[in-house]
Formats: sequence, C-alpha cells, structure tokens
Amino acid sequence: MKILVLNPNTSEIVTQKVADVIHQIARPDTEVVVKSIEHGPESLESFYDEALAVPYEIDAVKKASEEGFAAIIIAAFCDPGIEALKEISSIPVFGLEECSFSVSLLFGNKFGILTEKKHKESVKSREVRKHGLEKRFAGVCALDMGVVEIANQREKVFERGKEAAKKLIENGAEVIILGCSSMAGYSQMLSKEIGIPVIDPTIATFKLVEGLIETGLSQSKIGLYSTPKPQKFN
Amino acid sequence: MKILVLNPNTSEIVTQKVADVIHQIARPDTEVVVKSIEHGPESLESFYDEALAVPYEIDAVKKASEEGFAAIIIAAFCDPGIEALKEISSIPVFGLEECSFSVSLLFGNKFGILTEKKHKESVKSREVRKHGLEKRFAGVCALDMGVVEIANQREKVFERGKEAAKKLIENGAEVIILGCSSMAGYSQMLSKEIGIPVIDPTIATFKLVEGLIETGLSQSKIGLYSTPKPQKFN
Repeated sequence: MKILVLNPNTSEIVTQKVADVIHQIARPDTEVVVKSIEHGPESLESFYDEALAVPYEIDAVKKASEEGFAAIIIAAFCDPGIEALKEISSIPVFGLEECSFSVSLLFGNKFGILTEKKHKESVKSREVRKHGLEKRFAGVCALDMGVVEIANQREKVFERGKEAAKKLIENGAEVIILGCSSMAGYSQMLSKEIGIPVIDPTIATFKLVEGLIETGLSQSKIGLYSTPKPQKFN
Repeated sequence: MKILVLNPNTSEIVTQKVADVIHQIARPDTEVVVKSIEHGPESLESFYDEALAVPYEIDAVKKASEEGFAAIIIAAFCDPGIEALKEISSIPVFGLEECSFSVSLLFGNKFGILTEKKHKESVKSREVRKHGLEKRFAGVCALDMGVVEIANQREKVFERGKEAAKKLIENGAEVIILGCSSMAGYSQMLSKEIGIPVIDPTIATFKLVEGLIETGLSQSKIGLYSTPKPQKFN
C-alpha cells in the first residue's frame, strides 16, 4: 500500500520535518511518498494563503490517483481544500483536522484545540461547527505565537501550551489536539505534563490511514463529495 | 503489539466467526487473541442481556490489562459496558459502534445505520445522541429480522439491507454502518449494490485500532472515564 503525504505549502524545511516524522512511524511494509505542492505559499496562515495553494493540491491529487497511491493525506491541520480534493479524487483523501477530531472522540467526552494566533480561534471554532461536532468541543486556545516561532522556541511553546491546555481542561477538555503542524514534537512532553492524551495530528492521521486503507473504504460519492461534472474553463 | 478482541457474549459460533474475520485481516506482525467472556448471555439483544454481560467483560478487561495487551476491542456493535471498561482499564478500550461512527465521519456528510429489529431503532438513535453526533446522522433502519436469521439467511438480508439502505440514502445517508455483528460479511456486496461505502464495524475498528495503538493514545482519565475509586462491595 502506497500513501502520499502531501504538504500543501512549499516550505522545504516543513516538508523535510514531516518526512522525518512519517518515516519514523511508518510500518516497514508501508510505502510512503512525502512531497510538497509544486507551487504556492511557503506557509498557510490565512484563507487567502489556502486559496492560492488549493489549485496545486488539486494537481497533485489528480496525479496521485493515477500513480498507484492507495490514499492521500493532506499534511496541514487546516485541511485546505479538503472538500475539493475528496470530490476530485478516486482514492481516499484524509485531512489532519478531520482525522484528529474523529480520533479524539474515542478518548474522552470533549476535545480542545491549541492554535497559534488569537484570530485562529474563530477559524477553528467554525471548523468544529462545520463538522457538526460542537457537542464534543471544549474550546480552542491560542499560544499567541507565529508558526515559525512555534517551530523554534521549544520552551516558550511548552510554557504557553501548558497554560492554554489547562484553560481548555477547565472548560471540559479531556483530550488536547495540537492544532498546527508547527507544534509537531510537543505531544508527548505536553501529555506527560498535563496528564491527558495530546493528539499530534500528523502521527494520529498517518496511523489511522495506514490502518484504514486496508478496509477499502473511501469517501462517498453521492453527496458532499460527488465527483464534479467537467466544466468549460475559459 | 497484542490486541484482545473480546466477544461480550458466550456464543462459540459467534466467537469463531469473529476470529475468522480478524485472523484474515490482521497484519502478520499483529498478535491477536479473540475470546469470549467466561459467563453470560449467548446473545446480547437487550439492555437486560448487556447488564448481565458487563461484569464478565470487566473481569476480562482487568485481566487483559495485566497480560501485556496493548488494546482491547469489544466485539459487539452495542458497545456494552464500554464506559465502565474504559474507566477500569489501564490500556485503551475501543467499541465497534464508537469507532464506526468516527470512521464514517471521514467519508461523508451523514451516516445511516442498519439494525436488526424495529425496537432497536430507538436504541441506535439514542446512542448517536449520547455521542453528540446527531448532526451527522441520517437515521437508522431495521431489517426486521432476528440476529440468528440475519446470520443465516443471506438473500433475505441482502434484499432487506438494500431496501433499508435506500431509505437511509433518501434521508441523506452517504455512508452505511452495519449496526449488528450478525451482518458481518455483507459490507462489500451491499456497497457494490448501493454504490456507497458500507462500514463493517469489526473490520473498520480492528484496522483503526491496529493503527492507533502505535500512537500510544488511550482514554483520558480526567473526566468521563476517570478511574473509579475502590468501593466496599458487600
């Protein structure tokens, strides 16, 4: 089984970090290709950035369907363009956010999300609403740090992550989701400190997908993700 | 990694059927033990039956935690006693129903459930409500057949399953969940016929768990599944 892990930004450093994690956790008999989209923003931090990345994700997903991949993972927590990708793909496409939500439901009554900047709290709340999971949602709390800062300042992330997680716990969170790929590598440390499961979306999604692809299940094509009719493109 | 698949009824035929499926789909390097509870009803078809089975599930789960298992799957769609088992267990416990719900969310807007008897429709609806997933639920439809009948009368199950699935699709279902272990073996045939993903809970849960146990995630112990305080038992 061959899995494509697609980084929907063009940062080589991020692609390499994702590849390092994936190659560490993949089973020896799982073939994985980790790559980034060919063109697009170096980091996705707004709807605007995402909108510019999606056409290149579509290109990569179309190719992957023809290249013998069994599944595609979009390796950014914001699930950029996930609906369009599920529509157009003949193989299953998975987003880190949707998979993290699904996994978190198994481990506690409510999940909480850590995010980078304050304004992202609105984005994440709306994502939860989009998925209809409000009843399982304890809230979202920002570290008030940028993506690059999060990737580099371990101590500050740990301190702020701890404080934010505690707020979420007070609000009913029993599971914490690291809501930004830049937080990779913090889950075990944070989980140990706050005493509850902390989901690293890349790891949880990859292991989930590695298992699920053997079921042959894929996105349903009769509703939300119906295959688009070909359109004239002028 | 060693997984215990616990049949929470005492039917040897059912245990054997589950074992056959699991041994077919397990990865070669996954160690699996499939067994039933030591005493209890031969089939779980009511809250009453479930109540009598749960103490024996608790016994099995307590033992498994000490016997080096990495995870436990309760192999009945009704998730009998799942909360008590997650409370008492030091290793992750997974139910077929909760896992099927989580998986279904990734493949379509709404899921529908096939169940055996009419009165079970109320039970399943309430389960969905318990999990807070009403917004992703298209409904439940009974085949109006008993558990034994379902296991033996393939053609009738196929015909009724098809009709029931069509009703659910009309009501918005994009994914169908086979809501009774006795329906094992019908998923591929039914999926081909109705053209949407059909989840076999045993298969989906097993593959999900086989992947997830490598993440080290387990049920949170600060809320819903807090470890019970020891009680005097007179």
